[in-house]
Amino acid sequence: MPDTTKLELLEDLMARQRAIRRFMADDVDDSLVERVIRAATRAPSARNVQPWRFIVIRDRETKRQLGAIFDELGTRMYGQGAPDRTPWEEVPVLIAVCSEYAFGEGEAAMAALGASIYPGVQNLLLAAQAAGLGAVLTTRWKAQEPQLRPLLGLPETMALHAIIPIGWPDRSYGKNRRRPVGEVTYRERFGEPW
Amino acid sequence: MPDTTKLELLEDLMARQRAIRRFMADDVDDSLVERVIRAATRAPSARNVQPWRFIVIRDRETKRQLGAIFDELGTRMYGQGAPDRTPWEEVPVLIAVCSEYAFGEGEAAMAALGASIYPGVQNLLLAAQAAGLGAVLTTRWKAQEPQLRPLLGLPETMALHAIIPIGWPDRSYGKNRRRPVGEVTYRERFGEPW
Repeated sequence: MPDTTKLELLEDLMARQRAIRRFMADDVDDSLVERVIRAATRAPSARNVQPWRFIVIRDRETKRQLGAIFDELGTRMYGQGAPDRTPWEEVPVLIAVCSEYAFGEGEAAMAALGASIYPGVQNLLLAAQAAGLGAVLTTRWKAQEPQLRPLLGLPETMALHAIIPIGWPDRSYGKNRRRPVGEVTYRERFGEPW
Repeated sequence: MPDTTKLELLEDLMARQRAIRRFMADDVDDSLVERVIRAATRAPSARNVQPWRFIVIRDRETKRQLGAIFDELGTRMYGQGAPDRTPWEEVPVLIAVCSEYAFGEGEAAMAALGASIYPGVQNLLLAAQAAGLGAVLTTRWKAQEPQLRPLLGLPETMALHAIIPIGWPDRSYGKNRRRPVGEVTYRERFGEPW
């Protein structure tokens, strides 16, 4: 049997990954922001193209405007009962995850791009959590790209994938809840029970 | 300052994540396969829909046919000098990552789907690595979906995102190489130096 100490630690971290949307007022140092971004850059990407670019946002007015766009999109998607009311202006740091269209356009190219961005995003989220920080992955921005580009100075050649609020969690959170492996896993062929 | 022991362990793990394509002959127990899939299911997904489905493949003939398709796609993409010549038949386990089209069709829907699949894929890869296993993320399959569906018994309602060969690495591997944070990170607006 292999030594599973590292695996157990990782499993515990992953089981406790939650979407954290409310934070204490305390700031997050640049040095720590840089470490979670470095974790993201360690991820795999198709042909190792490393298409990711990060924008670290601390400016209160930018955060306010991003928050207004986010809430408008939420109302459009969920109505007035939109579940996610992050107090965007109060979040210490936002990290916007962008990229070049590294594989061209069209559905297959966008799939390859997602495969080359979200492993890094997950590294970033796990590293933040390991440091004691809270974070939440928000991806609903696509519908508002024209409004977002000037706010972030983002040229037409760049895609915006996600914005990740980061800060010290307002409280402690329990484990996440997920469907059991047996319900989502098959043996040899789709539909054959695990 | 926060306690960064966990973060340091995670940083070391991420710095050593490599694409492992050659494995020892030793088998990988179902119990360990189940643990790495469980790690995947702990990941975040949009609206927590958990769209992932996994197919665990050990059948030699299926592996051979998948390998033939993969190599054909490689030759098409790279010519005869295709860099990735995984000996597919010899790989102990393949995990195919599929999903429903949980957010409909079109570019925005596919982006949301990628955002809800690849964090889990990265969890799976990191968990495998933490257990001492090697793995590699392969995503070039989209162009051959019609040929792949019958092999995996995959209905038209399901997308195939990736196939991940897993086994005990043939040798030890060093750290990965990535561009420095300062080259891919901006402050407040795209283009402003970090």
